[in-house]
Parts: sequence; C-alpha cells; structure tokens
Amino acid sequence: MTDGQPSSSPAGRVGVIGVGAMGMGVARSLRRHDVATWARDIRHDAMDEAAALGARPASSAAELARQVEVAILLVVDDAQIDDVLFGDGGAACAFRPGSIVVVSSTVDPQYVAALAARLAPLEVHVVDAPVSGGPAKAAAGTMTMMASGRPEVVARCQPLFACIAGRVFVVGERPGEAATFKIVNNLLAAANLAAGAEALALARRAGIDPARALEVIGASSGASWIVTDRMTRELAGDHGVRAAARILAKDVGIAAALAERLGASARFAHAARDAFRAAVDAGYGDEDDAAMLRFLEQR
Amino acid sequence: MTDGQPSSSPAGRVGVIGVGAMGMGVARSLRRHDVATWARDIRHDAMDEAAALGARPASSAAELARQVEVAILLVVDDAQIDDVLFGDGGAACAFRPGSIVVVSSTVDPQYVAALAARLAPLEVHVVDAPVSGGPAKAAAGTMTMMASGRPEVVARCQPLFACIAGRVFVVGERPGEAATFKIVNNLLAAANLAAGAEALALARRAGIDPARALEVIGASSGASWIVTDRMTRELAGDHGVRAAARILAKDVGIAAALAERLGASARFAHAARDAFRAAVDAGYGDEDDAAMLRFLEQR
Repeated sequence: MTDGQPSSSPAGRVGVIGVGAMGMGVARSLRRHDVATWARDIRHDAMDEAAALGARPASSAAELARQVEVAILLVVDDAQIDDVLFGDGGAACAFRPGSIVVVSSTVDPQYVAALAARLAPLEVHVVDAPVSGGPAKAAAGTMTMMASGRPEVVARCQPLFACIAGRVFVVGERPGEAATFKIVNNLLAAANLAAGAEALALARRAGIDPARALEVIGASSGASWIVTDRMTRELAGDHGVRAAARILAKDVGIAAALAERLGASARFAHAARDAFRAAVDAGYGDEDDAAMLRFLEQR
Repeated sequence: MTDGQPSSSPAGRVGVIGVGAMGMGVARSLRRHDVATWARDIRHDAMDEAAALGARPASSAAELARQVEVAILLVVDDAQIDDVLFGDGGAACAFRPGSIVVVSSTVDPQYVAALAARLAPLEVHVVDAPVSGGPAKAAAGTMTMMASGRPEVVARCQPLFACIAGRVFVVGERPGEAATFKIVNNLLAAANLAAGAEALALARRAGIDPARALEVIGASSGASWIVTDRMTRELAGDHGVRAAARILAKDVGIAAALAERLGASARFAHAARDAFRAAVDAGYGDEDDAAMLRFLEQR
C-alpha cells in the first residue's frame, strides 16, 4: 500500500481512467461503496467532478497505475487505450506485477485479445469487461457487464464488479470473448434503434401520430428495448445527451468489420453503420443517439 | 335472422373467411364465447377443423355473407380479399345493408382505404383491424388489435373484438390508418428479427455460443421481443411453424413500397425485404420466420 490510504473494501484500490459519462458513473458507484478510488482524465472539469465524488485525482495514467490494484478503462476507443497505457505518462510500465486492467470501453475483440498479449510480459492481467446500460445505470451501479478473462483474475474483480454492475455475465476465459458479446449486442441496439427511427419517420409521413405508433409497437411484435427507451424521450422533446450517436456509430463500425473479417452476413451491420455514419456526417455525432429520428425526418 | 340460429351474444352473428392459422384461432376464441360463428375456407380440412370447434361451414363466401352481420377476413393478402369479396361466389353483393367487413389480414393501407370506397355503395362498412401476436394468441383471444373506421361502426364491433383480442388500439376513423400502424410494426418485427438472426450467426462464427449471446442480449440494450421469442425456439431446435417466413416477407414488401411511395427513408425496410426475399427464394418461405437464422448460417 502506498500513499497512506488503506484499501477500504474487498474490491481493493481501484482506478478509473476516462471519467466521461460512463466512467463518472462508475466512480460514483465505487465511492458509494466506499471503495478507495483514483481517477484520471485529460479534461480538468471531469477530474474536478470526480474529486467532488471523493475520488483522488491522478496527474497521469502512470501515477494512477502506481496507486491501484485494478484500473478500469472507460475511454472512448482503442486509440485512447493505447495512449493511456503506452503513450506519454502511460500506465503500462507503472503497474505493479499482478495488477489488473479492466477494459470496459467497447472495442474490437481482436484489439482486446492483442492487448492481453502485450501486457502479459509486464505481469499485468487483462479482464475484458464491456458494459451496457448507459450513464444512468452506470451511476446507479446497475449496468449489465459481460466479462471474460482468466478465471482467477475475474474472481479477484468480482467484489469490484458487484459495486458497479447489477448483473455480470462471465462469458469466457479469454479476453476478446466479452468484447464479441458486446459488439453483437450493440449491432442489434444500433440496428433496432435506426430501424425504429425509420419506422416512426415513415409513420409520421403516412399521417399517423408517431407517439401513438410507438405505443402500439411497444405492445406488439415490433417491440424493442432501445426504441421504447430512446423514442419515448425523443418524441417527448427531451434531447438530453445520454449516449452520443458517434459512440454507437463506432460500435456498429466494429461489428461490420468483424462480420466482414469472418465472412458472415452483414446486411444489417452495413445498414446500421451507414445510417449512423450519415447521421454523424450530418452533424448529429454529439447528439443523443435518439436524434436518429430527427436526422431521418430531415432527409 | 335466418337459418333458425339465434344471435347468442352482443357480438352478433359472425363469419370468419380464411380459417388458416390465425383465422382458426379467431374462430376458436369466438366459439369459446358462444358467438354464433360461420366459417369459410377453400381448404376442406380447414372447414372440417372449424366445424369441430362448433363453427358452421359456409359453402361459399356469399353464403357466409347472407348469414352474418360481421365478416372477419383473415385470408393471406389483397388478391385473396378481392377473390372472396368480388370473385366467383364472392361475398360483396350478398351482404345485407349495414353489414360490416373487418379486414384483419395485413395489407397495403391504400388497398384497405380503396376497399372501403368500393363497398360503400353496397352499404357495407369496412373496419380496418389488423392483428398482432401470432396463432397462439389468436387461439387464446389475447392478440393485439389495431382498429380504424367510422366510430359507430367500430363501436358495433367492440363486443366481438373483446372475444378475440386482449388489447384493442382504436387508432383512427379511416380505414387504412390501422393498416399503416400494422405495416410500421411489422417492418420493425422483420428488421429486428433478421438483424437478430444476423447477430447470432455472427456470434457463432466468432466462436461464441449463440444461446449465451441471446441470453446476454435479452438483458442488454439489444433486446427485442421478436428475437427473444423466435431465436429461443430456433436455438432449442423447435422448428414448428407458427408464422411462415413468406408472411413477414410480404408485409415488409408492403412497408418498403409504402416508404418509397412517400419518399421516406427505407434503408431498413429494404434490408429486411431483401433478407426475407432471399430466404423465401432459398426455400424457407413455408418455414417459421425464425428459420432466418438457419438461412443466414448456410450462406
């Protein structure tokens, strides 16, 4: 133990790298369980907000790595993971042997598998642990988590996961497996959402009230979780950003690339990728992904 | 009243034209409520099965029309509706004035609107009343129904609808409006189902257990009603036919045509139409629509 702060929970000393919408929710859940938490982000306001929750700010990813047994990565993509681990002030060489990197960003399964191989010589373990549920569930500690990694390493993380997730599916023993589950799920989330936006735009153009269409669909065979969630907000005029459109655009791009690499059918991966790319290109990238409806109606 | 059989319920004397999977379920629900029911189908075995439920067989659609106040059409498509109403032995001219034709087949909204105009000179009313839920819910009387038509005509049908549907959404006053709701719903059902099959096929090709992927998806943001329903059966090896793939293929073709006619975005309507067309072309038309998974895995 360093820095005089004892580990206050079975979860040990935990760092969160990337305290954006999701990472901040995780930090909040950890602090609610009195877990000794460090936080790192390149944005000062995010660091201040994390500090207000009782997380200790780290001046670099490397400093964070020296303080914790487990570091949870919730940055945006694989380029940012490479930067926080292997870039200037990066964490990789600062971890003590036996430390665990929990990759909770949604990235290409191949990338996570390769990352585990890159960190293995440093005796740093990787748990592939993407999450689903959005910022509100992250803050409430009720996300769904998919996890894969060496069983004894995943077991060490379970007290921590219990603080931040409502449900943990341990789906395999190799990093990359959980990422595959996540990508498959997000392919469907993106396809269902964009198809739902298309259907409601069609409804309005056909002269029927999209809110009424949404109600009927929710009680019929076209029901999906994400359409009820997002389109209810969107039709109520609530344009608050919970999950930016560019995140789902990135995820479904990974899904399309995975399908192509494996020679699998990719009709809907392509349709969803193209729909979200077009929305991002039209300026909706930083809007909530529910803005797909506005985008399609303005075509 | 003709034929000596009194109307035994507030629903009046009811005919079901087309006693296939859905129509037979409706006949069963009507008989469970002791509604005087006539049935008509061109298939003798279907007529026999309806008779076993206590429905009276009609030798032609015209004969049925002479016996009932309300005729529910549950044939496959608009061509069959034209045939049973206006073809040889057709019902249109045999109805007494004030009779009601309930169109519960899923057809193009324009067709239903035009049908109402064609039957108006005969003083035959049309209620546009598509249903959702499949044969099991039809037999249990728990389908979801969308209805549009003149309010006093829809009101006359409500005791009958209460026998066959668990929930009735009255969505408008013009025939064609309910059909639009149904088409919009079925566009989503088809897109969600085919995207889900694609995602599970991708999961398997990536080396993960599709049943486990389905479980995780069902608890995550990619969840949809139809994927949980159909893929659970399919992965359990239950290939019983509840809803033939060619039905959803037809419906999503109507959705794509509607979107094109209105100049609306049709990316997912096209993707779903093309996926189901390809499955039908590959010989899966008479299989359950859940067979989309087998089709995509055999590509």
